Amino acid sequence: MIGIVGGVGPYAGLDLAKNIFANTVATTDQDHLPVILLSLPHTILDRTEYLLGKAPENPGKAIAEVILQLEKAGATVAGIPCNTAHEKDIFGLVRQVLADNKSEILLLNMVEETVKTIRQDYPQNKKIGVLSTTGTWQFGIYADPLQQAGLQPVTPNPEMQEKVVHPAIYDLTYGIKARSNPVTNKAREDLLAAIDSLQQNGAELIIKGCTEIALAIPEKVVAGVPTIDPSVVLARSLIRNFDPAKLKE
Amino acid sequence: MIGIVGGVGPYAGLDLAKNIFANTVATTDQDHLPVILLSLPHTILDRTEYLLGKAPENPGKAIAEVILQLEKAGATVAGIPCNTAHEKDIFGLVRQVLADNKSEILLLNMVEETVKTIRQDYPQNKKIGVLSTTGTWQFGIYADPLQQAGLQPVTPNPEMQEKVVHPAIYDLTYGIKARSNPVTNKAREDLLAAIDSLQQNGAELIIKGCTEIALAIPEKVVAGVPTIDPSVVLARSLIRNFDPAKLKE
Repeated sequence: MIGIVGGVGPYAGLDLAKNIFANTVATTDQDHLPVILLSLPHTILDRTEYLLGKAPENPGKAIAEVILQLEKAGATVAGIPCNTAHEKDIFGLVRQVLADNKSEILLLNMVEETVKTIRQDYPQNKKIGVLSTTGTWQFGIYADPLQQAGLQPVTPNPEMQEKVVHPAIYDLTYGIKARSNPVTNKAREDLLAAIDSLQQNGAELIIKGCTEIALAIPEKVVAGVPTIDPSVVLARSLIRNFDPAKLKE
Repeated sequence: MIGIVGGVGPYAGLDLAKNIFANTVATTDQDHLPVILLSLPHTILDRTEYLLGKAPENPGKAIAEVILQLEKAGATVAGIPCNTAHEKDIFGLVRQVLADNKSEILLLNMVEETVKTIRQDYPQNKKIGVLSTTGTWQFGIYADPLQQAGLQPVTPNPEMQEKVVHPAIYDLTYGIKARSNPVTNKAREDLLAAIDSLQQNGAELIIKGCTEIALAIPEKVVAGVPTIDPSVVLARSLIRNFDPAKLKE
């Protein structure tokens, strides 16, 4: 089975599952791949709070325990649909706890898969825009691996990050976490303005580095610039590793 | 944990999970309830095909096996987000296999929960409209329990069922199963016409007796008539049985 670490956040788990179904070659229910989603949000501390020193324990241990349960139930490959959980201390602890428990599950790294996909599918693009929460921005969750791959991350300046991008996700009156059905015009317009600004700074491609951003900007191309949704990349990588014949073109 | 039988169909499982999250009192990820979704669609034969004599085996056995796996993984209450799986021979076999295996999980019945909710929340309404696939219509999956509860089901006439309602769900060019993002105008208009017809025949309430219908008609009230989404009813019953304090008003 394909395993999904749910609960980080709960809706991001559903989004990854939906992306798996949507990227599977299937015309009937029976054609779909076996998937298990385990959403145990109460066991996993907030990833950003931990990175900011506000939560006492590295949430990587609890995430690894969910993965061990997924493996016990039959999952052979798994993914974590939370960008912040891919910060190196957190993801490192996940891998360490899995190794300590002699886990044989194949855990994919959503950020690495995204960088790999960009290099394969857009080999000519070097300047890569990243839209994300302030936590992901501050800890270079995409910027560092992009640089290590020889690419140049283009991120919002601190003012745009704090006053435009982050509130589009978190603001209690118009942010996407509070108002997603439908997303408010303000959240969408603010993110489009941020994309425009990244583009003016040279971005040739935009990573939607937070699940909520893909809800507000579903388009694959914005003003001529391609956008990449890491949850879709992870979904496709999970299918490719589980049963490549089932991956939609 | 709350267990969800996924795969019947795959998107209906996600819809039930989403309805659980949306009906939970929660302001952070950590406030959400533990949920496990097991989507093993390849093991479960098509429910309608079985009822029409076109599939060799009652899919209730495979559904029960998913529930036993959910229980083994820690689920204490579970639901099946497929209306057709609630046909009495199929659901009866599910209960029998669970009993044979000495299962202690609390399996809720989405159809019974829906009828109970109507009697509690709309005690003055006696004529209940039902929109569904032809399978659910033909086997009286809602009509029979409504009658047993002293209510009067109002269903489309055969022509409207076959030529308007069923194709709005299944048609390969405009039906919701083929085109759900967004739903086509034709599918929505046809379902609204069917609701109007049921209303003219006296329906005081409409059951959206198929997951796809709720995608096309998200409104809680259409032309003054309340609508009921059984997936929302099941989600709320699962929360109520698992942790009543977490149920949103």
